[in-house]
Amino acid sequence: MNYPMIFYILSRVLQLQGVFMALPCVTALIYREHQGVAYLIVMVGSLVLGTLGRYIKRDNQSFYAREGFVTVAFAWILMSLVGALPFVISGEIKSFVDALFESISGFTTTGASILTDVEAMSKTGLIWRSFTHWIGGMGVLVFLLAFLPMTGGSDMYLMRAESPGPSVGKLVPRMRSTAQILYGIYIFVTVAEIGTLLILGMKPFDSLALSFATAGTGGFGILNSSVGAYTMGQQTAITIFMILFGVNFNVYFLFLMKKPKQALKCEELRYYLIIIVVAITVITANIYNSGHYSTVRDALHHSAFQVGSIMTTTGFSTADFNVWPTFSQAVLVLLMFIGACAGSTGGGMKVSRWVLLFKSCRNELGRSVHPRSVRRVHFEGRPMEKSMIHSVERFVVAYLLVFVTSIILVSLDNLSFTETFTSVAATLNNIGPGLGVVGPAGNYSSLSILSKSVLMFDMLAGRLEILPMLVLLLRGTWKK
Amino acid sequence: MNYPMIFYILSRVLQLQGVFMALPCVTALIYREHQGVAYLIVMVGSLVLGTLGRYIKRDNQSFYAREGFVTVAFAWILMSLVGALPFVISGEIKSFVDALFESISGFTTTGASILTDVEAMSKTGLIWRSFTHWIGGMGVLVFLLAFLPMTGGSDMYLMRAESPGPSVGKLVPRMRSTAQILYGIYIFVTVAEIGTLLILGMKPFDSLALSFATAGTGGFGILNSSVGAYTMGQQTAITIFMILFGVNFNVYFLFLMKKPKQALKCEELRYYLIIIVVAITVITANIYNSGHYSTVRDALHHSAFQVGSIMTTTGFSTADFNVWPTFSQAVLVLLMFIGACAGSTGGGMKVSRWVLLFKSCRNELGRSVHPRSVRRVHFEGRPMEKSMIHSVERFVVAYLLVFVTSIILVSLDNLSFTETFTSVAATLNNIGPGLGVVGPAGNYSSLSILSKSVLMFDMLAGRLEILPMLVLLLRGTWKK
Repeated sequence: MNYPMIFYILSRVLQLQGVFMALPCVTALIYREHQGVAYLIVMVGSLVLGTLGRYIKRDNQSFYAREGFVTVAFAWILMSLVGALPFVISGEIKSFVDALFESISGFTTTGASILTDVEAMSKTGLIWRSFTHWIGGMGVLVFLLAFLPMTGGSDMYLMRAESPGPSVGKLVPRMRSTAQILYGIYIFVTVAEIGTLLILGMKPFDSLALSFATAGTGGFGILNSSVGAYTMGQQTAITIFMILFGVNFNVYFLFLMKKPKQALKCEELRYYLIIIVVAITVITANIYNSGHYSTVRDALHHSAFQVGSIMTTTGFSTADFNVWPTFSQAVLVLLMFIGACAGSTGGGMKVSRWVLLFKSCRNELGRSVHPRSVRRVHFEGRPMEKSMIHSVERFVVAYLLVFVTSIILVSLDNLSFTETFTSVAATLNNIGPGLGVVGPAGNYSSLSILSKSVLMFDMLAGRLEILPMLVLLLRGTWKK
Repeated sequence: MNYPMIFYILSRVLQLQGVFMALPCVTALIYREHQGVAYLIVMVGSLVLGTLGRYIKRDNQSFYAREGFVTVAFAWILMSLVGALPFVISGEIKSFVDALFESISGFTTTGASILTDVEAMSKTGLIWRSFTHWIGGMGVLVFLLAFLPMTGGSDMYLMRAESPGPSVGKLVPRMRSTAQILYGIYIFVTVAEIGTLLILGMKPFDSLALSFATAGTGGFGILNSSVGAYTMGQQTAITIFMILFGVNFNVYFLFLMKKPKQALKCEELRYYLIIIVVAITVITANIYNSGHYSTVRDALHHSAFQVGSIMTTTGFSTADFNVWPTFSQAVLVLLMFIGACAGSTGGGMKVSRWVLLFKSCRNELGRSVHPRSVRRVHFEGRPMEKSMIHSVERFVVAYLLVFVTSIILVSLDNLSFTETFTSVAATLNNIGPGLGVVGPAGNYSSLSILSKSVLMFDMLAGRLEILPMLVLLLRGTWKK
């Protein structure tokens, strides 16, 4: 294991974290909030320590998959630890475990909160919470690759370990340019959302915080009612932007390259939109017919918002779907497990994985009936490699193992079975709210330290797509 | 598709069904119950129609995987339809859907019941219900193969489609002898249980009915309290026999061949026993500490019974685990998804599948860290073929698809999420009771016809390990 190189990259992450903390510091200045001091301390500390890391001797340039996984996993743990410090120093979150939970939930774009009263928090703290979503959405190592010169062949392995989806599509031959393009699109769409919300009459602070949380598909709100208190127009805008951020960024790149036909041919995009439309339709019918809303328009509005929010794994809410009929809840829980598109900022298992599994399963069924027929699964216009399908199948198995272990551990808290199940589903898929006490109207504060620790692991495992976190637990990783 | 051959085999199944109905007819004579008439009518009808099938012209002897799947699926549907008739004719179950549910639940060894008052049923009806478990446990086509001369190469495909587990191990070169040995062991252990229960003072009728239900890992009780009203000694005997019937029958065959060392080397058996011991231990600790039982002995007794019952997918109960702490419930729900050993009469996904998945997953994780290391997964002392692992992975995916679709459809009944989830889990894994209204103290009578239909499909899909039922729905199956 190339430790010097790993420490070097971690020091750059720390440095970057310091830079990012400028935002809450500025916010504190504007709103004259004393909490800013905590952020300033951590910012200076991070910058100093991070800069010292430049002097790490790194003669050995060998950097492979193993180093990639370990670096990414440690980078995310480091970010979360440092990100939690100002919450504790400022006294806004008393317990370090709770602060760490909030920080991990932020960076992993989960949006599960231990705060019982979000509105009691300072604007400084609120903007930092939302900003962690934005940082975590596209990934901090992708940011490093884009804007800081890296050495050696580390780029590919880092990108692969941090990027969501079954495969990393390079947009352009150079990894660095790919990372720059991705961040360019990310910043552009974020600014577009901020602008839209401002035009629709939202206050600047709220526009900024909500746009960060939408862009990263995070879901931290700044009001106790999540997004319930905003106007219908503003909520609709957020619905649309949530869905936009759940789209594979390759699609936007193709539009940018003036290849709209190719962009719209994207198979994953098609399934993603079909699933959203079907889910919105059946839930609208279900909640309207069961008398939860008096007009179809209201039912459609809330159905669309919740579907967009859960499918993209954002986790905002305008309605407490705990009181919706079981059918609507079951559809939402199903969406939790589907997730957004690969190559988006959204979490979950990703639409493309399901499409691949479904197609491969249908194909194999056909083969068991006609054993001599040779067909290949096509996806995105290309025949799928068997190795890709198997890697997806393995992902599902690893995912299930983490899922089941988490359920058993969290069940020790003696919450109801539904609450236990959905708290794991909502964190492992980086969504945020589940059902019951962890539902949209509740929070995670009442859970035990053991459960919180398990869910923190799940949030990281979910964001990094299981592998990097599991690799940490493997004995073989640490062998020579 | 070789329809004449399929119809021929189906007619033999019908004939056999007629023979099996002699048991309820004799029971009716002994207890002088008028319900026997219904069974006599169906018996005569099955025998006559079945015998007519002998005259089907079957010049074409070609019989492949496709015919195998379709025959097995249709055979089970036919058995269930015919098995439901006497319930309706005798008037003991009014609705045909309910009668079919009860019949499918019997043959698939699920044990989920729509009866609200089991004790109101005639002894004739009760013995038929329990006997369906026994017939379904080892499989009716295996029975055909063992005791009736079949023609052509159909044996292998039929056996493969009906037998549980990732692969069919021939015990001896000839399929027919294998089937005979399996049924020999099956009958022997069943008789051993009947004898044991008689010695422990149970009434002959109860011993017979409960032994049938244990042997098939079914779970239909003949009292409203399931097995709760029997003595502790009798319950303990049932616990032991449940666990015995969840063991791969190969193990017994090896003992029979005087190869006890080889028998005890069986890796699946080891994991099966370890899981049972661990589950019993943690649940005992949990229910004792939470004050549900005043002595460790009581806690251990009920924990062992419920673990044995759920793990082997039998579904008997001596306690209402709905009131147990969530941790114990979660462990039981997890056991539902593990299931018994391959090659046993138990259902679920089978211990060997999980062991294979877990080993393969660990191996692949290791490979992603050390890409150039070449290791093979070993199972039962042999290196595992990749094709076997992939077929298990595909099984999991097909299983998940059926699971998710079922949840969505059943959720339309607006039961709680836990009830919806566990009703599907308990039927697809052929267990019987879930949590809530479908729990050990409840039943499936209140569900809608849609939900009952979905769960009937799930029970059949679970018993036949998904493929044969899905093949029926595939367009390609019916093409030339």
